[in-house]
Amino acid sequence: MADLYDVLAIGNAIVDVIASHEDSFLEEQQIPKGSMRLISAAEAARLYACMAPGREISGGSAANTTAGIAALGGKAAFVGRVSDDQLGRVFAHDIRAAGVDYRTPAATSGPPTGQCLIIVSPDAQRTMNTFLGSCQEVDEPDVDEAMVKAAKVIYFEGYLWDPPAPIRAIRKAKAIAKASGRKVALTLSDVFCVEGHRADFLAMMKSGAVDIAFANENEAKSLFQTDSIEAAIEGLSTHIPLAIVTRSEKGAIVVNGHGREEVPVTPAARVLDTTGAGDLFAAGFLSGYTQGRSLKDCAIMGTIAAAEVIEHFGARPEADLQARVKAVLG
Amino acid sequence: MADLYDVLAIGNAIVDVIASHEDSFLEEQQIPKGSMRLISAAEAARLYACMAPGREISGGSAANTTAGIAALGGKAAFVGRVSDDQLGRVFAHDIRAAGVDYRTPAATSGPPTGQCLIIVSPDAQRTMNTFLGSCQEVDEPDVDEAMVKAAKVIYFEGYLWDPPAPIRAIRKAKAIAKASGRKVALTLSDVFCVEGHRADFLAMMKSGAVDIAFANENEAKSLFQTDSIEAAIEGLSTHIPLAIVTRSEKGAIVVNGHGREEVPVTPAARVLDTTGAGDLFAAGFLSGYTQGRSLKDCAIMGTIAAAEVIEHFGARPEADLQARVKAVLG
Repeated sequence: MADLYDVLAIGNAIVDVIASHEDSFLEEQQIPKGSMRLISAAEAARLYACMAPGREISGGSAANTTAGIAALGGKAAFVGRVSDDQLGRVFAHDIRAAGVDYRTPAATSGPPTGQCLIIVSPDAQRTMNTFLGSCQEVDEPDVDEAMVKAAKVIYFEGYLWDPPAPIRAIRKAKAIAKASGRKVALTLSDVFCVEGHRADFLAMMKSGAVDIAFANENEAKSLFQTDSIEAAIEGLSTHIPLAIVTRSEKGAIVVNGHGREEVPVTPAARVLDTTGAGDLFAAGFLSGYTQGRSLKDCAIMGTIAAAEVIEHFGARPEADLQARVKAVLG
Repeated sequence: MADLYDVLAIGNAIVDVIASHEDSFLEEQQIPKGSMRLISAAEAARLYACMAPGREISGGSAANTTAGIAALGGKAAFVGRVSDDQLGRVFAHDIRAAGVDYRTPAATSGPPTGQCLIIVSPDAQRTMNTFLGSCQEVDEPDVDEAMVKAAKVIYFEGYLWDPPAPIRAIRKAKAIAKASGRKVALTLSDVFCVEGHRADFLAMMKSGAVDIAFANENEAKSLFQTDSIEAAIEGLSTHIPLAIVTRSEKGAIVVNGHGREEVPVTPAARVLDTTGAGDLFAAGFLSGYTQGRSLKDCAIMGTIAAAEVIEHFGARPEADLQARVKAVLG
């Protein structure tokens, strides 16, 4: 099978609603700053009614990653369910306009398109409140065998682990990928995902099903229930051929069977909204990886893409990422 | 009747869809750069399919002005029709969250909420393609007599002049305002509005119904079918007690029966998206006017509000306008 795609990702299809608030708003709402939580339709309506004017911008973690891969010149496909409503059409338009192959049919009944109510604080930290809506209905039939077989890397976001249908979709895609010799990549997404699905994530890693894992420092520590970043890295590298731990302003650590690379962050021109930094790091890294670059250069590409996305509101790239990579790596 | 509102505005209730494109896109699409045009649902769908990923941000000219007045500490109300759909709920949420009193019921049938597909060029110029949708259905019953009587200024946007229902709404609001001794303000909105409704606008002005008029240089010239800005200013000041001509980077000219003030622009920290500059100039000016400030200070407030809105994507203020005014005027 020809390599039609560099990366095929399965994830939650989300439109972000981004509003700026002072820290006092989070305190009043009793929402921990920097957290990500799943909320009901009723809580989404209640919280939205209290929020400042918003910007609606397509998001979704793995979807952001595919948009980044496309911006970097790669070929990406995305699988995730929206509803047949205005925000679902916005999501579908935006990801296709970004150059990503997106074919999942919209749900014509059931809940509306998933939304993430994002509070951005004055220090650019984001606090996410996600109403999954129709995201939870992506299922096995949405995973096209030929598309999975045609992708160098199949990428899953940890946020998918919860309702049964997306887990069926992941299981199918994973089985096709492994049978076809394709690489499987996983992002742990959030500490709450790790806490809720630690056993599943570990079992998947120990079975040899995960070729590449992305985690931030806290997710990695949580997975191995340790306070030591070194112990967490050791745990990851024991089970996974290639693991990347992102550490916010401290840069990233890449470990594989042959050793370890550490790269510093790429400085951002300004830091306005940190939403999507991890998603775009993964985009940069996987772009480099599928181009056959050195692991160090992959990580540098990750930091370049992450730096761009925190310079503006919204978790999809706006500037010319290929030019930025070229300026650094030639 | 007590002054419950500084400004009550009637306008098109629009959600902007803002995408960045090189000038070549406008050339391919054969859309004149910097223009504003009305498009059908079919043309909106066709153009949207060609557009880059968007940012959905509440807009609408007079709606932006009311959001600016609220941001400046004033009391504003807005009348305009959305549809009962997701973008309609976004519009209603955002204008209320901005502090504007917005009560117009959403249409439960008919076309969707109005949208403006905005192409922003690298030089920050905006080109607007508006699908009016349910905007055209604002009508007489949406104009609440008590609310009009309670507003110091009733503000109309020229964009409303086209379908019959909004014109009925304007006529009703104008009659109530005049009978109650309230000031009527009008923005000419765009040259295409002036070209289409020159006779109406002139008749309304000559009848003494317009107390305050806002026009940019081209609109003012078009109204009096002259190439001379001085002739246009002379024409406005003959018929209108207070006229303001905005001149982009050349600042603004204010004329009333007693004389003339000219103010330069307030420099923007950066110029990213010029959408809403005129709307926010009107917001700043009317805020000063309803606070009883000098005409020069009103115009300075207009330039301060306009400078802020061109620094970011979207036509509603994001920064602390009151602080910016205080820094200049004390």
